[in-house]
Parts: sequence; structure tokens; C-alpha cells
Amino acid sequence: MSGRGGVRQEKVAATREAILAAAEQLFAEHGVYNISNRQISNAAGQGNTAAVNYHFGGKTDLVRAIAARHTEQIERIRVRQVARTEGSGELRDWVACMVRPLTEHLEALGSPTWYARFNAQVFADPALYDAVVPETMASPSLRVLLDGLNACLPGLPADVKADRGVMARHLIVQMCVERERALADNAPLAHPTWSALASGLIDALTGLWNAPVSPRP
Amino acid sequence: MSGRGGVRQEKVAATREAILAAAEQLFAEHGVYNISNRQISNAAGQGNTAAVNYHFGGKTDLVRAIAARHTEQIERIRVRQVARTEGSGELRDWVACMVRPLTEHLEALGSPTWYARFNAQVFADPALYDAVVPETMASPSLRVLLDGLNACLPGLPADVKADRGVMARHLIVQMCVERERALADNAPLAHPTWSALASGLIDALTGLWNAPVSPRP
Repeated sequence: MSGRGGVRQEKVAATREAILAAAEQLFAEHGVYNISNRQISNAAGQGNTAAVNYHFGGKTDLVRAIAARHTEQIERIRVRQVARTEGSGELRDWVACMVRPLTEHLEALGSPTWYARFNAQVFADPALYDAVVPETMASPSLRVLLDGLNACLPGLPADVKADRGVMARHLIVQMCVERERALADNAPLAHPTWSALASGLIDALTGLWNAPVSPRP
Repeated sequence: MSGRGGVRQEKVAATREAILAAAEQLFAEHGVYNISNRQISNAAGQGNTAAVNYHFGGKTDLVRAIAARHTEQIERIRVRQVARTEGSGELRDWVACMVRPLTEHLEALGSPTWYARFNAQVFADPALYDAVVPETMASPSLRVLLDGLNACLPGLPADVKADRGVMARHLIVQMCVERERALADNAPLAHPTWSALASGLIDALTGLWNAPVSPRP
């Protein structure tokens, strides 16, 4: 019995894996709201077009499951980098902790990837954002990172800090999309590697965070 | 005869106007590729569902016509601001020429607007980008602006300059989307006015352009 149960569990895991991979690619290329569960089931090689519903329920749960696989891996990279960075008073080091876990994860996935385009949709859509991002933000390494960053910016007003945080997020998300799409289309690349993109972003974001604040009316 | 021709021309102009307004809103809220010409014709109050095809041909021509209305108005604002700025050696002044024509245009439209979300899709989609953006880039005021900006950054390598140009574009486009969406959803606003958003962006982008460049491997 336990042997048969084990085989069944493996089969379920393989089906879930196939669905997650197919959904991520279809979502990235066509948009989360343009793809039906039926199309995902087909692309995942499931004869039963209700396979997605059976394994994941609604679209939000599916999006959450795709995101979770990536954020776990990104979190592992970030934990290591934050541990190396703790105690640093250099803004640049903390900005690197914000940028490199994502670019190293994309590098490790090997081309083509779909995660950057998938992730941009999660950040752009209020419903998907609420379903995915707050949970991610609860990560302890992210807390340490934000404390480290804040400690380097003692004079920056809280609202400007929040505003620049939003800007940093858009910049990281969009620049990764730009490179991922160029790789997918065999288009000319602005950077030879994900690491080179990260360096450019870290320079730029360090400048952005450090920029003087104009007097406000 | 000429009287009847004039009435007919006015009717055509009103129909085109209704179609452009309906299409812009539907595209912004649902995505350019999720909206059919039939849906636009209906929303524009056209009994004939082929009205969009008749007046604009394909979707690309419709997108181009929507963009053209806005870029003409943005260009008028930019021409004035660039004329005031010519001769300045201050990076910040040129960054302001890059940011304020868009935010002043959005302010002038009055809430709700759809252009920021429409524009983000044009920038994110390679086919729409090619159909719309190169034409916009031919504007003489933009040429003067970029020359002015470049003159303030004599030591910056060309590839870093190009990279930061892409970053600046993403930041301006995405931050305007963020505010436009918050206004549409009656959500809390990060900035009291479009002008306050522009000030924050100008500070941040001046820091971004001025950031030192790390040595590259």
C-alpha cells in the first residue's frame, strides 16, 4: 500500500510541476488574465482539462504557487547575502542585497526564463499583488535588509524613503523584464550577463537613494 | 453641397473622437490585446460594429492615433520647457524637461485619466513600441533635451548613459501608472499632486544619472 501511495504521490507531484511550468510560461507570454485553466491543462499535457482546478483551485492559488517556488529560492540567496552584509554601514551593500538575489536566481534558472515577466504582472495587478507580495514581505531576511538600508539613510524623510522604495522596486522588476524578453527574442542585450545588469542597477539605485531632496512647497 | 459636406465631416470627426476615447479607456483597463474592435465600437455607441475598422483600420493604427493625440500635447509643453531651459548646464533642469511634460499633461487632462496605463503598454510591447515610439523620438525638442542632458554628463560611458536612459523611462512610465491607478481606484495617494510626483522623480533621477559607475570586470 505505501509503495502504491508513494507512486501516486510522485505522479501528483509531477502533474503539479508540469502545470506550474506550463502556467508560468503562458502567463509570462500572454498575460495572466488571457490564459484559461483549460489552456494550461492542455499545455501541461493533461488530458483532463479540469486538472488545474483539481490541483490548484482558482487562478489566484495557481499564481501564488508559481510565485512561492521562486521566492523560496530567492529567499535562500538573500539569507546568505544578508548574513555576509550584516554590520555594514554602506548603502551600496544593502542595495546589492535588494538586487542580486533576483538576478542570481534568474541566472541560475538558465535561459529562457519566464519569471521576470510573470513577476512584473504580479506587481502591476492589485489583486495578484495582495495575494502574493505581503506574504513575501514577511521574510526575516528582508526585514534585516530594510533595517540595514534605513540605517544608511538617517536624514531621509519617511515618505521620500517609501517613494524611493517603490521606485527601486519598479526599476528592478522592469529591468529584469527587459533583459528576459531580449533573451527570449534573441534580441541584442544591453548587458553581457545578469550580474552586469545587477551592477548597473546597484550603481543607479545607490545614486537614487542618496539623491538630495528638494524643498517641498 | 459644401454645408452638407461640412456636417458630414463634423460627424466623422465626432465618431473618430468617440472611438479614440472608448478605446483608450478599454485598453488602459483591460489591456490592448484583450479588447476587440467590436467592443470598442459598442462602447463608443456605434451601432455598426465595424466602425473601428472603417475609421482606423487595424489595432496598430488605432493605438498610433491614440498616442498621437497625447504626444502632440506633450510636445507642446516640452517645446516651451526646453526653450526656457536652453543654455542650462544643470542636469536637474534637463531631467525636469524629461519628467514634467508628461505629468503636466496628465494633470491638465483631469482625473480620471487612462493615458499613463495605455502608454505603459505601448512601452512594454515590442510591436506597439515600434509602431509608436520611434516617430515620437523624432521630435526636435526631444533632440535638444537629450543634447542638453548629455552635455551635463561628459564622463559617463555611452553604454551606461543608454542604460540609465532606459531606467529613467521605466521609472517615469511606472510611477505615473501607479498614481493614475490610485486615482482611478480612490486608493491612498503617495503624492498630493502630479507636480509633487514629478519633483520626487526629478530628485531621484538626478541622483541616478549622477551616480558613480563601478569598475567593470
